[in-house]
Amino acid sequence: MKLNCDMGESFGPWVMGQDHAVMPWIDMANVACGFHASDPDVMAETVACAVKHGVEIGAHPSYNDKQGFGRRSIPHSPESITQLVAYQAGALNAICQLHGTQISYVKPHGALYNDMMADLAIFEAVIKAVAGMNSVFIPAIKLMILAKVDNQAFLDIAARYKVELLLEGFADRAYTPEGQLVSRQQAHAVHHQKKAILQQAKGFAQGYVIAEDDSRLEIKVDSLCVHGDNDASINLIQSLRQVVSP
Amino acid sequence: MKLNCDMGESFGPWVMGQDHAVMPWIDMANVACGFHASDPDVMAETVACAVKHGVEIGAHPSYNDKQGFGRRSIPHSPESITQLVAYQAGALNAICQLHGTQISYVKPHGALYNDMMADLAIFEAVIKAVAGMNSVFIPAIKLMILAKVDNQAFLDIAARYKVELLLEGFADRAYTPEGQLVSRQQAHAVHHQKKAILQQAKGFAQGYVIAEDDSRLEIKVDSLCVHGDNDASINLIQSLRQVVSP
Amino acid sequence: MKLNCDMGESFGPWVMGQDHAVMPWIDMANVACGFHASDPDVMAETVACAVKHGVEIGAHPSYNDKQGFGRRSIPHSPESITQLVAYQAGALNAICQLHGTQISYVKPHGALYNDMMADLAIFEAVIKAVAGMNSVFIPAIKLMILAKVDNQAFLDIAARYKVELLLEGFADRAYTPEGQLVSRQQAHAVHHQKKAILQQAKGFAQGYVIAEDDSRLEIKVDSLCVHGDNDASINLIQSLRQVVSP
Amino acid sequence: MKLNCDMGESFGPWVMGQDHAVMPWIDMANVACGFHASDPDVMAETVACAVKHGVEIGAHPSYNDKQGFGRRSIPHSPESITQLVAYQAGALNAICQLHGTQISYVKPHGALYNDMMADLAIFEAVIKAVAGMNSVFIPAIKLMILAKVDNQAFLDIAARYKVELLLEGFADRAYTPEGQLVSRQQAHAVHHQKKAILQQAKGFAQGYVIAEDDSRLEIKVDSLCVHGDNDASINLIQSLRQVVSP
Repeated sequence: MKLNCDMGESFGPWVMGQDHAVMPWIDMANVACGFHASDPDVMAETVACAVKHGVEIGAHPSYNDKQGFGRRSIPHSPESITQLVAYQAGALNAICQLHGTQISYVKPHGALYNDMMADLAIFEAVIKAVAGMNSVFIPAIKLMILAKVDNQAFLDIAARYKVELLLEGFADRAYTPEGQLVSRQQAHAVHHQKKAILQQAKGFAQGYVIAEDDSRLEIKVDSLCVHGDNDASINLIQSLRQVVSP
Repeated sequence: MKLNCDMGESFGPWVMGQDHAVMPWIDMANVACGFHASDPDVMAETVACAVKHGVEIGAHPSYNDKQGFGRRSIPHSPESITQLVAYQAGALNAICQLHGTQISYVKPHGALYNDMMADLAIFEAVIKAVAGMNSVFIPAIKLMILAKVDNQAFLDIAARYKVELLLEGFADRAYTPEGQLVSRQQAHAVHHQKKAILQQAKGFAQGYVIAEDDSRLEIKVDSLCVHGDNDASINLIQSLRQVVSP
Repeated sequence: MKLNCDMGESFGPWVMGQDHAVMPWIDMANVACGFHASDPDVMAETVACAVKHGVEIGAHPSYNDKQGFGRRSIPHSPESITQLVAYQAGALNAICQLHGTQISYVKPHGALYNDMMADLAIFEAVIKAVAGMNSVFIPAIKLMILAKVDNQAFLDIAARYKVELLLEGFADRAYTPEGQLVSRQQAHAVHHQKKAILQQAKGFAQGYVIAEDDSRLEIKVDSLCVHGDNDASINLIQSLRQVVSP
Repeated sequence: MKLNCDMGESFGPWVMGQDHAVMPWIDMANVACGFHASDPDVMAETVACAVKHGVEIGAHPSYNDKQGFGRRSIPHSPESITQLVAYQAGALNAICQLHGTQISYVKPHGALYNDMMADLAIFEAVIKAVAGMNSVFIPAIKLMILAKVDNQAFLDIAARYKVELLLEGFADRAYTPEGQLVSRQQAHAVHHQKKAILQQAKGFAQGYVIAEDDSRLEIKVDSLCVHGDNDASINLIQSLRQVVSP
């Protein structure tokens, strides 16, 4: 099971995250593509850092909204979603090529990620963008989505476009008995204790998670999403690294 | 000798140019990449139109300046130029892949084009972006620059990076005896008479141009740059199409 | 009853609308403020044109979305709405001051206008922006909203902030028996026949409109919204000008 | 002699500077207006903080270039400069009005500041923007520029437009014998020792500065520019506060 982390979310003069401290500990870097954060220079620096540490690079496309950091849902037709994702993934890929590498997956950001999980038409629009790139790219690019107890509807669409899915889990988020993330409106939505987080990570490594009602859910996870905002979170990544073999 | 034209310079709700009327008459479409004009949706529509008419697609990258339409020179380090060009060319290429095609060349726009012709460090930075993409793309992407009497310095750098150059001429612009374009400050900089323009195009097809002092310059041109802003210019393209065999 | 029209919706190199042809026939120009369209230069040119023709100037603020032309609803807190509107209205007002004039009203654009009419919290946020400017401006700035059969809830809030409302009607849109605009999804939402449009305008001038079910609604309208996109619409404005005395 | 500091240079999710720690110690806040940094929400938060601490608010307009943080010179006509400055100053002023205050001065940022000091046509364009707002605002808005040994050319133009100038000095920058700032290319351009900085501040308070060749220059300074990027700089501001009485 791999660790993935949002990276390259600085922009122009503004720094966000501690990418250089996080990169040595993760397997997959979700690299912002200039729409919710970043610019061609930040992207190039992030890619260089990932290459240095042998980290896989994924495109992290978003709605075009720096002020809202891609967290606001902006209405798009499915065709526009496809073109929005292709534009950003292609831009990052060309930056990767300057460093002798390529993207290996796409993981939408923020509101686009949520909209994709909530609306299969948007999911299919994202899949189409990845499939378009895969007509040329070898090895093929994958799409990372939220692992749920039942991902069948997503898997069916992805199979139709011959796109492989990567399923991600959250070691620091509570799950409902139905296998959804508990809403952040709820007080217990986020695990704050390190011990609980590491335990949930170990569960994912064995194919299960304990839901908020203590029921055990079988859930397949390829990658855990981690955060590198501050010293405490980097410390947590290092601990997760020990319980999760890459 | 081919005809190339700037295309896809609409943006959001704003329309520019008569792309659908021009596309049937040209060989190469220089497609804006979202920095001086266009957006992912306009790019996709332009690529679809080019594919329909069997027109080659080139990336037309620019400084990031929609208000100034990429006509204002904005200071960049060479590294930033490389990343700026790669970003845009990669973005367009991914849009092309949605339509089963790829870009075959890059032609910088506006101030970036002028800066590239005036400063070999900027030219080399652009070449690096193309070379980066060529590590992956087959067939290789070319770079279009202004044809001059002596392009040797540009050819030398391009050879070093194994990038092929395309040389473009202007049938409607007067040339100095040194083979430069006469500055637009000069009254006679632009030919307005159709007959003179067609004659200069015929000369280019045979490898020469008559300069403002009536001297004859040997100049190699691969492609003529045409414009599709209004009905008169489209009529002119149709006439050029007859004297210039593709 | 006055005629108002959206103006100054060009941006950088892109032209939209026929402002110079429309301005002589209208009373109030809703001037874009750089968020859905326009830039400081277009704003200055538009203000100069309005001043030349003695036309009142209103700020036409929007969500920050040029690609979507302000027609996509973007989630904002009420505080952000207030600041968004104040920013744009203040910017336009300073451009007006360069030409010796001031804005006299605010009319939100596109999705912001619709959201304001659909959600009193957003309406109140807009009112607060206008009230803030009125602490300084004499004469006071007004807010233009959609005239409905019953505007009481809007009037109550506006009164609380001592902001005067202007009510606008649409001569070319069908109304429901409840006094709402018929949705554009409906085939008969827009009147296309000039005669019907002029008749509805005359009705508004006398304080009523005939709804889609032929019922007569009493409705107070201060201003009719007209459009200046093409020659036909300008011709229509001229005809409306004759039936509607300013 | 007053202390001024660039403030409100965060943007969307990105934080820059320690505004809340700096505000209690300064007299004048140069507030970014959304073009090189900031957005309406950051502006409102910054204005609220300034009001709370009784700090004067100045508009800090810039070229429209967030990625380059307004540090890149972008060619503009003088008319465009005037409109660019008016737009931003007006926007900030409307945000101020939401908090019951107004801007009292304008200080251009970065490349625009440098261009204004290097080119009197640009300076005059900036003055025109301020003069336009002063046709309405009471008390009048001033313009802050770099204090030089001889400011006569600037004063003459400002007098023509009835705009009062504020002259700012830099306690941490070396001066040439001619009274210019020593270029940052030079090793000794910036004073790093606290003692030297405080001594130069005391000199300014008495109307002089010691140049790099130890000559003494008479120079009138109304305000010292300070920086609040990190803990050391905030500590320095507190020390400057003691030697410079407001």
